[in-house]
Amino acid sequence: MAKVAINGYGTIGKRIADAVAAQDDMQVVGVTKTKPDFEARMAIEKGYELYAAIPEKQGDFKKAGVSIAGTIHDLLKKADIVVDCAPGGIGAEHKPMYEKAGVKAIFEGGEKHEVAGFSFNAICNYGKAIGRDFVRVVSCNTTGICRVLYPLDRAFGVEKTRVVLVRRATDPGDIKKGPINAIVPDPVKLPSHHGPDVQTVLPHINITTLAIKVPTTIMHLHMLNMKLKNTPGPDEVRDVLAKAPRIRFVKASDGLTSTASIIELGRDLGRPRYDMWENCIWEDSICIDDGELYFFQAIHQESDAIPENIDAIRAMMELENDAQKSIQKTNKAMGML
Amino acid sequence: MAKVAINGYGTIGKRIADAVAAQDDMQVVGVTKTKPDFEARMAIEKGYELYAAIPEKQGDFKKAGVSIAGTIHDLLKKADIVVDCAPGGIGAEHKPMYEKAGVKAIFEGGEKHEVAGFSFNAICNYGKAIGRDFVRVVSCNTTGICRVLYPLDRAFGVEKTRVVLVRRATDPGDIKKGPINAIVPDPVKLPSHHGPDVQTVLPHINITTLAIKVPTTIMHLHMLNMKLKNTPGPDEVRDVLAKAPRIRFVKASDGLTSTASIIELGRDLGRPRYDMWENCIWEDSICIDDGELYFFQAIHQESDAIPENIDAIRAMMELENDAQKSIQKTNKAMGML
Repeated sequence: MAKVAINGYGTIGKRIADAVAAQDDMQVVGVTKTKPDFEARMAIEKGYELYAAIPEKQGDFKKAGVSIAGTIHDLLKKADIVVDCAPGGIGAEHKPMYEKAGVKAIFEGGEKHEVAGFSFNAICNYGKAIGRDFVRVVSCNTTGICRVLYPLDRAFGVEKTRVVLVRRATDPGDIKKGPINAIVPDPVKLPSHHGPDVQTVLPHINITTLAIKVPTTIMHLHMLNMKLKNTPGPDEVRDVLAKAPRIRFVKASDGLTSTASIIELGRDLGRPRYDMWENCIWEDSICIDDGELYFFQAIHQESDAIPENIDAIRAMMELENDAQKSIQKTNKAMGML
Repeated sequence: MAKVAINGYGTIGKRIADAVAAQDDMQVVGVTKTKPDFEARMAIEKGYELYAAIPEKQGDFKKAGVSIAGTIHDLLKKADIVVDCAPGGIGAEHKPMYEKAGVKAIFEGGEKHEVAGFSFNAICNYGKAIGRDFVRVVSCNTTGICRVLYPLDRAFGVEKTRVVLVRRATDPGDIKKGPINAIVPDPVKLPSHHGPDVQTVLPHINITTLAIKVPTTIMHLHMLNMKLKNTPGPDEVRDVLAKAPRIRFVKASDGLTSTASIIELGRDLGRPRYDMWENCIWEDSICIDDGELYFFQAIHQESDAIPENIDAIRAMMELENDAQKSIQKTNKAMGML
């Protein structure tokens, strides 16, 4: 039983905690919060031991009547591995603390590749994560792109790929960020950093990316274009993607015409927090035009990379050496078909 | 003095009326409305003679106390040329009426190419519109794409272009359409019809397009990617675009970071209805990556194609045989720098 600590019980951290708790070879030994908000109270209600992420602020919890079991330092003593779910950039600051405590650590996609020196996606490089002390699980966008690039590259050879990322402006619970009524090139300077981030996992892929932010909160959307070495028909592409893990086909003819209806499907499926962990690829969009592949996929930014974190724990803790077995185990425990 | 009728004083029609009125070689002889709403009252206040677009409904105007000068049939008797600004598809139904009345007619981008048999963009094919009886001025999106493709093709040769269109969901005054919080692939089936529409103006261009709808009302955004025969540097691309008409560079470093700030610029410029008639290209986005050109441009859907309508009138009425002279005359009269 791997003992897992979650440092930062927020959007990503709370989902990883639940996903860890659903596995039979790992357990949550505790979670942290910087402040005693509703998420902190929810963690306790769910049965997770709560710790203060910032030792100097543990008094705030007492004042608010939220009982904590100690600070992050106490938690790290009980853990084999910590998943750092602090806001982007803060994970790097935490690394010396993890090293000092002698625990393995996973960082999320908001941290730079160099923080861990190894960027992870279960389908692409599980084997290379086995036994590692530090691993970075790439962002939801990079995860979503890697999941389709890897099987298509193996099947047909990706000569060149261009990806347009249409990003949700902020997460559903947030009221601080915009835009409300605008399209924002982000970054304006091209190409975007998403291509090089994909290359931290798949260094040999020739990729150019562009990204914009739009006024929606529920999902990202990707438009993928690939020049493949062996030009397949759309049916062959569909067959390859259908066999790859964590991919779900959606069809406009089923009424799944936008990110909104995909989320409605997630709610109807009874998914926790309506999470759609899989890449949702519009099957009817897959086409070969002028010798190149094009398709649309929707990516649920809050949950897409959660199963990858579970696989990363399993590889780093050497609980399973086979990528496919870990992926299947994770999926089954989380309730993915 | 060319006598111009506007059939449909709505989003496009009211703008064309004002643009015609600003010229010294054409005049508005009347405009039509299907119903006596605020736009009908505004037309009268502005001094345009108002006619009932649907003869059977002229009684509605009297009841509402909005005085009309007659019906569309009366208006056509006074006109040399009519600009049909009816909703998409209705223009085709009107064509026999125009033929019977012996007036030339311009159709907008919502009609099929076949309705006029000739699709127009001032910079691309002004000369071929001279003396024609029927011309279709292509949509705002197609206009925006043609304006950059033509000069870049002439300068460097466009071997292949891929364009992603991120469309505003609906116009600012509308409260009927969505999405409010979703990204909609539209159409899901790829490629989109926008590529073939560009080819109605520039048949030799190899183009693939994808389009989505997002929750914003103010502008479209295009992401352009081109493989050019002679690969230029970004500065050479900028120089070519800078010389092309109806293109305005915007810079993120000037605070023009989104479609919202571009519209704020239009308001500060004192533009009528804040219209941005030019393609707004983010100068800092122009880049060559892996031998291909990429850049962002914002397109104001309500006004982008308005100056093209003026040039089309001038060509069809044989008021000016030189494209550049017509473009400059139109721009100057409308107040474009």
